[in-house]
Amino acid sequence: MVLAEELAKQQKSISVAEFFEKNKHLLGFDSPVRGLITTLKEAIDNALDACEEAGVLPDILVIIKKTPSGSFTITVEDNGPGIIPEQVPFVFGKLLYGSRFHQVRQSRGQQGIGISAAVLYAQLTSGVPAMVISRTGAKTKAHRFTLMIKTQTNEPDVLSHEEIDWSLPHGTRIELEFESSMSAKKRLLEYLKYTSIVNPHARFRIEIDGESATFERVSGEVPPCPQSIKPHPYGIEFGILKRMAAASEMTVDLFLQEEFSRVGKKTAAEILAHAGMKGSLKASRLEPGDLKKLLTAMQEVKIPAPPASSCLSPIGEDLILSGIEKEFALDFVKSRSRAPGVFSGHSFVVEAAIGYGGRLEAEGTARILRFANRVPLLYQQGACAITQSIAAVNWKGYGIAQSGLPVGPVLILVHIASTNVPFTSESKDAVASIPEIEKEIVLALQELGRDLKAFLSRRDRNRIAEDRARAVCAIIPDIARKVSEIVEKPVPETAAIEGRIMRRVVVKRELLDGKVQIRIDNHTTKPVELTLYDISPDTGEGATVAPDFSSDLDGEVTKCWRVVVEPASSWVTLYPGAGGGSLTVQGMDESKMVVMDCEE
Amino acid sequence: MVLAEELAKQQKSISVAEFFEKNKHLLGFDSPVRGLITTLKEAIDNALDACEEAGVLPDILVIIKKTPSGSFTITVEDNGPGIIPEQVPFVFGKLLYGSRFHQVRQSRGQQGIGISAAVLYAQLTSGVPAMVISRTGAKTKAHRFTLMIKTQTNEPDVLSHEEIDWSLPHGTRIELEFESSMSAKKRLLEYLKYTSIVNPHARFRIEIDGESATFERVSGEVPPCPQSIKPHPYGIEFGILKRMAAASEMTVDLFLQEEFSRVGKKTAAEILAHAGMKGSLKASRLEPGDLKKLLTAMQEVKIPAPPASSCLSPIGEDLILSGIEKEFALDFVKSRSRAPGVFSGHSFVVEAAIGYGGRLEAEGTARILRFANRVPLLYQQGACAITQSIAAVNWKGYGIAQSGLPVGPVLILVHIASTNVPFTSESKDAVASIPEIEKEIVLALQELGRDLKAFLSRRDRNRIAEDRARAVCAIIPDIARKVSEIVEKPVPETAAIEGRIMRRVVVKRELLDGKVQIRIDNHTTKPVELTLYDISPDTGEGATVAPDFSSDLDGEVTKCWRVVVEPASSWVTLYPGAGGGSLTVQGMDESKMVVMDCEE
Repeated sequence: MVLAEELAKQQKSISVAEFFEKNKHLLGFDSPVRGLITTLKEAIDNALDACEEAGVLPDILVIIKKTPSGSFTITVEDNGPGIIPEQVPFVFGKLLYGSRFHQVRQSRGQQGIGISAAVLYAQLTSGVPAMVISRTGAKTKAHRFTLMIKTQTNEPDVLSHEEIDWSLPHGTRIELEFESSMSAKKRLLEYLKYTSIVNPHARFRIEIDGESATFERVSGEVPPCPQSIKPHPYGIEFGILKRMAAASEMTVDLFLQEEFSRVGKKTAAEILAHAGMKGSLKASRLEPGDLKKLLTAMQEVKIPAPPASSCLSPIGEDLILSGIEKEFALDFVKSRSRAPGVFSGHSFVVEAAIGYGGRLEAEGTARILRFANRVPLLYQQGACAITQSIAAVNWKGYGIAQSGLPVGPVLILVHIASTNVPFTSESKDAVASIPEIEKEIVLALQELGRDLKAFLSRRDRNRIAEDRARAVCAIIPDIARKVSEIVEKPVPETAAIEGRIMRRVVVKRELLDGKVQIRIDNHTTKPVELTLYDISPDTGEGATVAPDFSSDLDGEVTKCWRVVVEPASSWVTLYPGAGGGSLTVQGMDESKMVVMDCEE
Repeated sequence: MVLAEELAKQQKSISVAEFFEKNKHLLGFDSPVRGLITTLKEAIDNALDACEEAGVLPDILVIIKKTPSGSFTITVEDNGPGIIPEQVPFVFGKLLYGSRFHQVRQSRGQQGIGISAAVLYAQLTSGVPAMVISRTGAKTKAHRFTLMIKTQTNEPDVLSHEEIDWSLPHGTRIELEFESSMSAKKRLLEYLKYTSIVNPHARFRIEIDGESATFERVSGEVPPCPQSIKPHPYGIEFGILKRMAAASEMTVDLFLQEEFSRVGKKTAAEILAHAGMKGSLKASRLEPGDLKKLLTAMQEVKIPAPPASSCLSPIGEDLILSGIEKEFALDFVKSRSRAPGVFSGHSFVVEAAIGYGGRLEAEGTARILRFANRVPLLYQQGACAITQSIAAVNWKGYGIAQSGLPVGPVLILVHIASTNVPFTSESKDAVASIPEIEKEIVLALQELGRDLKAFLSRRDRNRIAEDRARAVCAIIPDIARKVSEIVEKPVPETAAIEGRIMRRVVVKRELLDGKVQIRIDNHTTKPVELTLYDISPDTGEGATVAPDFSSDLDGEVTKCWRVVVEPASSWVTLYPGAGGGSLTVQGMDESKMVVMDCEE
């Protein structure tokens, strides 16, 4: 027998379940700790996607319990639309099965692998089948399944299926059991925190071995579910065009208009003219040579970008800001959503934010928060195009130290929303290096970098000015004393001058020829809103600016003014009286104000 | 209709070909340039694996040609055992089909994806089917196929199949066509260079658009093909054990001995005792609880490491050394092969080498050469456990600057050979972070680091000593002159003293009382091998050490000695004569030798 025949005997088909069982690290199941995080991530991704599709505010319950045998039971329950019983075995018991793979729109799940991979991991490591409960509406009963995956064929193996009563009117619950470790807890809470930042409409309740915590929703609005769109002509692959044409029963003219995004009558005609082709030909009859001409023409004609607003669901500048401000109490924070872009026919949007100071650590490299389609990316930071793009920006130009990544109390958030996020592996930890996306990230960060630079130089200018002012103010009293000695006059009050030099607000009450004058000088760069309480026997009647209210208590009259003073402006009131009593000023930090009550 | 039913309509199965068509970057087909490299890599991996299995010295021809339409035809031809015609459509036209996935042994291909992914990429981007020729022996004809992949089903689509005459008696040739760019050329040659370093038994001929080059084999020995072994009990997953037990018809006792590597009668008995189980039970009848006990026992009992020598094929320290020395002409180079290790039941070996100086660039980070199962890894250096392990070593402790990676004229080579290399993605660019492997890499590099440090400090010591010696020698002639003036004697010859201080070899010929003396003093730290040619009218007869030969030419006699002088030793010969003529010394660098011919 020839050798080739010997070798042929070992050739065989490998099921995709066998493949991922052997290469489970590709799916994010490298270790028991990682396995726990990945399982929760996949289950929560599905729950959020399903609630979004159904327009329901997500209420997600996560329970992690240690079993007597030392392994962990992981439960995720949602109030989504549920899954019809016929589909449950396939959704959870077959890899590469799902509803979102063929749709051109943003969703967390894309591959139809995630949750069934978790089922595969559980049965591989603990041998325990998955338990799934799902109910599609109040009028139907819930269905409970226990199931596994037949690895050699990648088909579901249903061990039990029964109808049961269930507390939720609709929703899905999955329970898996495998070995893990509580050291996953920190990462897990971090994951939930970041997930709730970018999903402000979702509530997460979590019970870890007795302890419980809630991440409340801060928005009561379900973001609109992105709509599936047709592929865009730009960047479409030849093989896909060929397949679409072969399956079409239309003329080329209609084929272009019906099967592609942004192609109307006019654009179709332009494409056909470029290709030198008649629109009345049957699309399915086109030869490879014709299809190539058509493809070339589709790339050459000017076609508007895909309707990203319907198929994508960016978080938005405001929600990003409020999410990170709450968490880090920053001195500076700005966010940017870039205009939608396209790579290989897929729409995408880059959103980014930069924060500075506040509770961020002053030492070490910047804190980086990466998100893709509203899902936080926790692993493989170094391998991610987001990280590489951040490192590609010249941060020194924006006044930030840099050693690869920026260094200092800096936070950088980047969110990529796309109809097809190009991850570097099925575990969806890192975004692959796609020039179009990297360029958008860099541009967003450069815009933000310029804002940060403006903030930092303003802060620095302020600091320098303040240092100088402080130096000047330090010698003013000495100068005053010296000059007084020479001219033999009493030492003058220098506080008002100091206030001016230090760019503060100076409030002064003094007696001038039987009249009381209250004067506010705003030497700062911002308008100030102050409330003055002038308490003395004077009634304040006849004041050039009358008090907003006054009250007499046993001959002591409280006169109150509420005043807004613009920067570099003054406010004055003058009334007949003898002064005495006291002046109190409220509305601003004492350190930024000089109050001189010349009656005291 | 309930919403869940609406949603259910979109649920469907995704073929693995559809999945990878959409996610082709996961397989290393991110871009046309990358696509070319990946295609060649996959085809060459298959060719080398097949030749190794057949025990044939690989002769691999690579042809890259621009077509009139601007795309490229990529051809790879090998002299391997060929593929029987029944299998050709599946090997090239179906993803997840192969012979090496289920075998526990080192091979380049593991997944049954690579070459069919290249076929998929070609048909997606250019629409051109793959052309395959294969012949299994001189007695049969060759078979030529053109084929594609039916994406929606992941099944082969054979467009044509015919028997043809072919020049090779056995082998396989594949031709693919797609768009690419000549900018891949540099990477490609680099890939072939590194591939031939770690496959010294293979010859590569390459023709790129007219130009041709050959990477000759430097070893005529086919490395033994690694043998498939049974799984090792350590690190085996519960799900696998369950499946193996269910499929077995044996008793547990025999099951353990027959189905696992390194388990004999004694070890099996020990495992059973630990599990508290009778060996006579049928393996297929074991309940999950029993299997868990068995699994635990298998981890607790001491079992020798897997027989790595048969299932792995490391390159070996000598071949690594000769490969990199040839390429970089280094000042220092050392290599280490570590003892085999195990992770999750898979055997692996780490080999490493460090080079210093020579033609390496003095500036910038170290040059890193990564290999896995004799295949060079060219992409995603940053995401690779090899790179991370290199960065984890404290290189400053070994006298090397470090900024994450070591900095300076340093080369680091790491090769991981394993029955299952844990790559971070199907494109096999980077090794995943597995603690057992990282530890071995770090240990190998630390060993080599110590050797490098010894080299560097010796070099530094030598430099310092030489600097000092040079300073002393600079003043010796002055001292000699001064002393001569004082004692009123002629200035003595100081060259011999200088030779001693500078640790050189001093050869002196002088006339002493009618006799000629030749003396060699070796002040270096190494033995020296010199040849002396003493040419004068003297015959040299009666010499205390007779010349090895002498020849008389018109009265001028050449006397020749071949001499080995140990470090810190002398050699002397003395013969009657009048001297004159000349003394020539050969065998060592002139700068390290002082020759004093006192007749001159």
